[in-house]
Amino acid sequence: MTNLIPKSHPRAQSLYVRERLVHAFDNGLVAKEGLMAHGRGEAFDYLIGEKTSKSAKNAIKAAAFALVSAKYPVISVNGNIAGLCPKEIVKLAKAVNAKIEINLFYSSNKRKQNILRTMQKNGAKEILGVDKKNSTRISGLDSARRIIDKNGIYVADVVLVSLEDGDRTIALKKAGKKVITFDLNPLSRTAQTADITIVDNVVRGIKELIDTCVKVQKKKLQSMKFDNKKNLAKSISEIRNYLERRAKIA
Amino acid sequence: MTNLIPKSHPRAQSLYVRERLVHAFDNGLVAKEGLMAHGRGEAFDYLIGEKTSKSAKNAIKAAAFALVSAKYPVISVNGNIAGLCPKEIVKLAKAVNAKIEINLFYSSNKRKQNILRTMQKNGAKEILGVDKKNSTRISGLDSARRIIDKNGIYVADVVLVSLEDGDRTIALKKAGKKVITFDLNPLSRTAQTADITIVDNVVRGIKELIDTCVKVQKKKLQSMKFDNKKNLAKSISEIRNYLERRAKIA
Repeated sequence: MTNLIPKSHPRAQSLYVRERLVHAFDNGLVAKEGLMAHGRGEAFDYLIGEKTSKSAKNAIKAAAFALVSAKYPVISVNGNIAGLCPKEIVKLAKAVNAKIEINLFYSSNKRKQNILRTMQKNGAKEILGVDKKNSTRISGLDSARRIIDKNGIYVADVVLVSLEDGDRTIALKKAGKKVITFDLNPLSRTAQTADITIVDNVVRGIKELIDTCVKVQKKKLQSMKFDNKKNLAKSISEIRNYLERRAKIA
Repeated sequence: MTNLIPKSHPRAQSLYVRERLVHAFDNGLVAKEGLMAHGRGEAFDYLIGEKTSKSAKNAIKAAAFALVSAKYPVISVNGNIAGLCPKEIVKLAKAVNAKIEINLFYSSNKRKQNILRTMQKNGAKEILGVDKKNSTRISGLDSARRIIDKNGIYVADVVLVSLEDGDRTIALKKAGKKVITFDLNPLSRTAQTADITIVDNVVRGIKELIDTCVKVQKKKLQSMKFDNKKNLAKSISEIRNYLERRAKIA
């Protein structure tokens, strides 16, 4: 598959990731809307220079502290995340002893089953959000995402949601959860509503998050101060600075 | 179809356009990569505040002059354009007496035929780029887009390409064409290479372009001075200013 993209291509890394997502679409994990959402992510990633910024590193550190010290952390998984980094999700869940729950915006049983299989193939033992007997609802949400698992998000204190829609983040916050998110648009409602927003490409950032969780655990570090609004303002000015630099070169 | 999106939704306009593209995908006009490309466009449109900026208006004016005074203008059409604004393409072609040519990056005969039918349904009489007998090649291009029509882009002096890839814009420039483009990313190779870059959502901008062409013709206006690099720099600072304003509100 990846033979088509020469390593020398200036945008090879981004094209590999794109290929992975198309593959996940062909395998019934990703929705059409998920392909468009990925495109939006590509554009914002481009504008942060396609690297993990200082503000993102800061948010990752805060996220690691929150996950490690959580009583009942849950990682919410959708089609795009399962298509892009299933192995890393399993690794992160193991590192911080978190549950994994499938939760879809454009929900269908078939897509859920495809995501379930992919996660299992990548080493996940227990996956929540697939057994109807355990489903309950979160209030203040109309989309399919209101369905949550009694043993998962419903009882979680900290939830990691990635590539998320704004309504759900708001509903999770109202339900008293601490929300961590990967979102490349620092202005989105999700980014602005979450407790900790990592403005980074999740494929890149999740590796750093796993490493940081392990470090925090080993060193038994204390919690850190983190101001999400301030950190987001920093993310926005990083984009502005990138545009300024690029405009000078162009 | 559009019943699902309430008019009151803060992002209704963008969601309607997205729906139109998904519809075009379901009808075999748009490629999977086209869905992702649309997402990238959405992100950049968001960053210019989803309105036609001053710099875009300036570029539209320059484009109208170039199209009206062209000897042999050709409008290049791909799946996304045909899915988003087929009627407007036909209207623009009539207004400036331009040819319409189908030219695809991810080419397939089936997709070409679907696009052809859509364009015809929307009033196009003559469509180039579909008869193999008339096909020739443009040098310096490896993708399927190198195939052009002897009676179209091959002999054109001015070519309007929208939602374009950088390689092709460079090849068209080398072949001596004046290139006009709609591209929402002012930093893209296409944007930086074209003679006139309209940094705007094509669905919005094409209407203004048609109106401006008609005005220029009626008033028999002379040509105008236009510096694409300067205008692009303006587009970039418009994005920077938008980010600054939004960061203050957030």
